Amino acid sequence: MTTAEPTPPRRRGRPGYDQATILHTAVELFNRRGYDATSMGDLAKVLGVTKPAIYHHFTSKEELLKAALDDALDELTAVVDEAARRQAGTAYERLREVVRRSVEVLVAHQPSVTLLLRVRGNSAVERAALERRRWLDERLAELVADAVAEGALRDDVTPTLVSRLLFGMVNSLVEWYRPDGAFTPTTVADAIATVAFDGLAR
Amino acid sequence: MTTAEPTPPRRRGRPGYDQATILHTAVELFNRRGYDATSMGDLAKVLGVTKPAIYHHFTSKEELLKAALDDALDELTAVVDEAARRQAGTAYERLREVVRRSVEVLVAHQPSVTLLLRVRGNSAVERAALERRRWLDERLAELVADAVAEGALRDDVTPTLVSRLLFGMVNSLVEWYRPDGAFTPTTVADAIATVAFDGLAR
Repeated sequence: MTTAEPTPPRRRGRPGYDQATILHTAVELFNRRGYDATSMGDLAKVLGVTKPAIYHHFTSKEELLKAALDDALDELTAVVDEAARRQAGTAYERLREVVRRSVEVLVAHQPSVTLLLRVRGNSAVERAALERRRWLDERLAELVADAVAEGALRDDVTPTLVSRLLFGMVNSLVEWYRPDGAFTPTTVADAIATVAFDGLAR
Repeated sequence: MTTAEPTPPRRRGRPGYDQATILHTAVELFNRRGYDATSMGDLAKVLGVTKPAIYHHFTSKEELLKAALDDALDELTAVVDEAARRQAGTAYERLREVVRRSVEVLVAHQPSVTLLLRVRGNSAVERAALERRRWLDERLAELVADAVAEGALRDDVTPTLVSRLLFGMVNSLVEWYRPDGAFTPTTVADAIATVAFDGLAR
């Protein structure tokens, strides 16, 4: 008797019908053509299925958007939450750890984070996502402020501005990072920490 | 006899018909709703004019896109060109100057740079813009490499990666900078130079 290899959950029937594949394809289309310009009909055509086959899993295009944004936000929230709740270590160490783990999340969830970073607040779902992003931004600025207060970081730049620039640099990843390119996630995370904390000048 | 105050160039007739106003409104719409999701009819409605009134100035939606992207690219190219051609000063000084002037361009041309940074290459106009962006990226990476070669910057991070992170930080401005907010362009440019070159750690 052999043990079956674990396989991704997949509904029976024609391939391309499972929830994960639909979501993955939708996010890719939203990123490439824009959310507003993509219809459920476009998605069905790319998947090679009928629209009802999609509606079986997602009742609307907005539900697809929400699932994608939640995927990105849940991961980023977990990273920030853990750093905020951890007692061990200095704020500076926790900030460096948040930078490192954020890079990992961005690389592992690049399509959904890309979508998240383009959200403008055109609907209730988008506004809820922006609200969650604001919460993250506030926690990050607090962590920077704590690291300044403990004397680890310079105090001549406003923590809010530092936080925006630091995570602006991290977020820029989604625009240029290629998993098959020259840089591993670790190389990128180390480079960001080096640039931001140690500085480029000799 | 009094001297008239200078006024923005404006064609005779109903307001909202001049080229600059049409372009400005189009870019704002493209950024808010997405380029593909915005029609010339939408633009005419927002401007309160007929479609032919727009076609009098721009023969197509793509021509509007091209004009907006060129606005951003011409400015950024001028900054990079000047730094590349200047003989005076070190590469490090020229790099710091490029960062400072890029921030000024991003703030002064925020809507068109925002549009530029979202271009994905879905048409010939978009692909030409991406080509010009690549040229800029290469010049910036060369400038970083020159600054490393002259011994001003650390050599343990690849110049291409440094350049991406540095201008990832600069470009993030378009997502969060508000002209009426707490930070002047000079404050932001100084903060970026401090974070990237001097580092945050004490």
